[in-house]
Amino acid sequence: MYRVDLNADLGESFGAYTLGMDGDVLKHITSANVACGFHAGDAVVMAKTVKLAKANGTAVGAHPGFPDLVGFGRRNMAVSPAEAKAYVQYQIGALMAFAKADGVSLQHVKPHGALYNMSAVNMELALAIAEGIKAVDENLIFMGLSGSCHIEAAKRVGIRAAGEVFADRGYQADGTLVPRSKPGAIITDENEAVARVLRMVQEGVVEAVDGTLVPVQADSVCLHGDNPHAVAFAQKLRQALSAAGVAVVDLKEVLAR
Amino acid sequence: MYRVDLNADLGESFGAYTLGMDGDVLKHITSANVACGFHAGDAVVMAKTVKLAKANGTAVGAHPGFPDLVGFGRRNMAVSPAEAKAYVQYQIGALMAFAKADGVSLQHVKPHGALYNMSAVNMELALAIAEGIKAVDENLIFMGLSGSCHIEAAKRVGIRAAGEVFADRGYQADGTLVPRSKPGAIITDENEAVARVLRMVQEGVVEAVDGTLVPVQADSVCLHGDNPHAVAFAQKLRQALSAAGVAVVDLKEVLAR
Amino acid sequence: MYRVDLNADLGESFGAYTLGMDGDVLKHITSANVACGFHAGDAVVMAKTVKLAKANGTAVGAHPGFPDLVGFGRRNMAVSPAEAKAYVQYQIGALMAFAKADGVSLQHVKPHGALYNMSAVNMELALAIAEGIKAVDENLIFMGLSGSCHIEAAKRVGIRAAGEVFADRGYQADGTLVPRSKPGAIITDENEAVARVLRMVQEGVVEAVDGTLVPVQADSVCLHGDNPHAVAFAQKLRQALSAAGVAVVDLKEVLAR
Amino acid sequence: MYRVDLNADLGESFGAYTLGMDGDVLKHITSANVACGFHAGDAVVMAKTVKLAKANGTAVGAHPGFPDLVGFGRRNMAVSPAEAKAYVQYQIGALMAFAKADGVSLQHVKPHGALYNMSAVNMELALAIAEGIKAVDENLIFMGLSGSCHIEAAKRVGIRAAGEVFADRGYQADGTLVPRSKPGAIITDENEAVARVLRMVQEGVVEAVDGTLVPVQADSVCLHGDNPHAVAFAQKLRQALSAAGVAVVDLKEVLAR
Repeated sequence: MYRVDLNADLGESFGAYTLGMDGDVLKHITSANVACGFHAGDAVVMAKTVKLAKANGTAVGAHPGFPDLVGFGRRNMAVSPAEAKAYVQYQIGALMAFAKADGVSLQHVKPHGALYNMSAVNMELALAIAEGIKAVDENLIFMGLSGSCHIEAAKRVGIRAAGEVFADRGYQADGTLVPRSKPGAIITDENEAVARVLRMVQEGVVEAVDGTLVPVQADSVCLHGDNPHAVAFAQKLRQALSAAGVAVVDLKEVLAR
Repeated sequence: MYRVDLNADLGESFGAYTLGMDGDVLKHITSANVACGFHAGDAVVMAKTVKLAKANGTAVGAHPGFPDLVGFGRRNMAVSPAEAKAYVQYQIGALMAFAKADGVSLQHVKPHGALYNMSAVNMELALAIAEGIKAVDENLIFMGLSGSCHIEAAKRVGIRAAGEVFADRGYQADGTLVPRSKPGAIITDENEAVARVLRMVQEGVVEAVDGTLVPVQADSVCLHGDNPHAVAFAQKLRQALSAAGVAVVDLKEVLAR
Repeated sequence: MYRVDLNADLGESFGAYTLGMDGDVLKHITSANVACGFHAGDAVVMAKTVKLAKANGTAVGAHPGFPDLVGFGRRNMAVSPAEAKAYVQYQIGALMAFAKADGVSLQHVKPHGALYNMSAVNMELALAIAEGIKAVDENLIFMGLSGSCHIEAAKRVGIRAAGEVFADRGYQADGTLVPRSKPGAIITDENEAVARVLRMVQEGVVEAVDGTLVPVQADSVCLHGDNPHAVAFAQKLRQALSAAGVAVVDLKEVLAR
Repeated sequence: MYRVDLNADLGESFGAYTLGMDGDVLKHITSANVACGFHAGDAVVMAKTVKLAKANGTAVGAHPGFPDLVGFGRRNMAVSPAEAKAYVQYQIGALMAFAKADGVSLQHVKPHGALYNMSAVNMELALAIAEGIKAVDENLIFMGLSGSCHIEAAKRVGIRAAGEVFADRGYQADGTLVPRSKPGAIITDENEAVARVLRMVQEGVVEAVDGTLVPVQADSVCLHGDNPHAVAFAQKLRQALSAAGVAVVDLKEVLAR
């Protein structure tokens, strides 16, 4: 039986600023990536988010990002590997404090935004992240882009890796995502998006913009919870997966196969 | 045999900014209070500081402060108890990530600056800090002002407390420190400071500015490492304590008596 | 003929975080208090907000706050008068750069949140703010709480002051606002709120919670733009004022009477 | 008669953190680049620094950087041109508030660290900075790397440009600096450094690492004030320039030739 995890970014509110429909999207996902105060989130929000995820039975992971709140961690920053490792450790530890308080074990770590994109294609940076994860807890799963440096770095460092795929993004022949500035970057047809996810999960391939069939490791599908449309799609995808006989379970269970 | 711990604030450098003579003062103290990135310190500095303390065999504790870097956490802030608790948890967790990486167990938590001063006389705030500490690890020791709300809050919450005393500060008849703006706030004579510490440790009392003998719980003496003079005094005090037959040991051992 | 200004806080969005219905409330107010990047707002938001206010013909003022983004500047901070003065200067200057770029002259300065509340009752702090305002531009109007230290400080320093009143808040017999924790703090009946504003503007008095008639200097009425209800009330109040023959004009014109 | 300006970065202290020997280096330079609170400096430090420069008769300029305090603005950040423009405007405005208070007119703007390096070779970014400068005050001089996009962008936008050269850095045949990671990056011999500056000022050329003679526009020489050695070199260079009949004057006077 096929298994897949559905993940979304949570806990991105900050102080007086609210972002995301956390309570709604939580009903449809199995793993929550919780912001840790660098690119989004704050200590009070983290405490609430962990409690909310626990109440929903959703697995909790850390979502460390660059120290760039005003840029929401989406801007590339030329941090050194030592800095990246320290930033990842710091953020995982901070979230772990709230998880411990609620008797929750952190399941995974997924780098955020520009840290994710840069490290997907930079082995040195990916290794720094993997080392930072392992330094805090060697049982944590490195959730990263399927087929990228993330997966390879986790293997080299000796921690588990989970391949992430995207329901709404086009792929290039080399397995990387089509940049948002190019045609085919976004899959706008929801049925097509669902069909692509099913194929990624069941056949382990995705059709790239040039027609090539690209192999993918679809352990987890990235979903969004920042608008009603995204939440509705999360629900639709989950139902379609279940209807197709795919078990939607959290990452720990996916990797236990 | 009398036992006492000597503590100092470490890891207060930030990015390109260096503060404190950490390597020097570490030779004379037994417990290091490590800044956690809110009022001072950053992830890279924390990683280095934990390694340095470990190499010196010095016990490591968290030194959480207010989110006020430009004010160095020294300005009172009207945070709510829920915020204080979350800030303390976050900072302990962040430091714990670096401690874990080096196989070090955090020993204690000492609030910094204005958070220390405000919570010493505000039971609600002191309880929030104690709860934050316990939520992360119930074995952590709450290092706080002898005779203050810190000690009482730790007891109520059910974690260990350690009383801190000051070698270079005058006391008032109620056990609080003489404000820096008033006469008698600072003990400038080093020999007098040493004699006062010895009396606090061996007799459990300190003479207040009005001549009253005030009972104190001298589990740890606060020292400074931000200038050569302070480091020299730390060395002198440690030698005087040893010469007087007082064992200078870390907080864990002091409390194990 | 009576004149009054209607003000609201604008430009409180930050990075990826949106706050406030700026475009909507701008249609009903005559003076905009623009956040300057300390408690809210950022450089990009400030640039947009100044352009938006200019396009609406609304006067622009600076809304400096404490350096406490996560607390939205709402938490009291024990800053020194020198720090308060410097923070105010810095923030006014930053906003002025965007105003200059668009050929807009800043009209006023209104301290935000806890900085407003603390300085309303602390003459030393109020004087520091007034001096900071004058240091940048002696033509700027200090918008502050009617009857408070704000008004007196402006007079002493030699800049113009404008008294602000609140449509939806209860007053105490001494002219201060009823704390939000006490009964009578909020005027929930919109018609009552409108009637109170009319009386403040036309008669210069407001009825306190104990029935006392308190004199007020109603140069400007504080409105809100953070929810549809608040925006609707702003429109309603403006219509009621016009219907009553009160000219709703910006602060410069109010003070020119 | 040849004229040249000597500039150094000032006001880089932050809160409790002191950086730089501002009072010492000020005696030897003619233009001060003052940090504006993003990569270094804070409002209180800015107020002090402007007063100190004024007391020394040194011209004051803004030294805007990336919003990366922990990285001291030295890490490349993928900001958009619109963000760069807004960041530059904001920081110039903030400094201008302190300059106005002391009756000082800002003379120039020199981007800091990674913002300097990135924009030197990126015309879009250089234009954004030039536009930000002009938007605040079209009389400000854009101090930038001789022969770089900085100079060209200033021309296109219609503001004055000043070419900066480096006494202690090696040049490549294309006029760019030898990267610090490569041989020849640093001129360690002080006499050689002095001789190179003299040649740059008097002949308008510098010998690159491959022996090529590269034309330079030596309006200002970059000096450092972060250590006693650097301050001593600043003094030595100034004396050598004077002895050679070169007038050491501020940037306004250099450009007035």
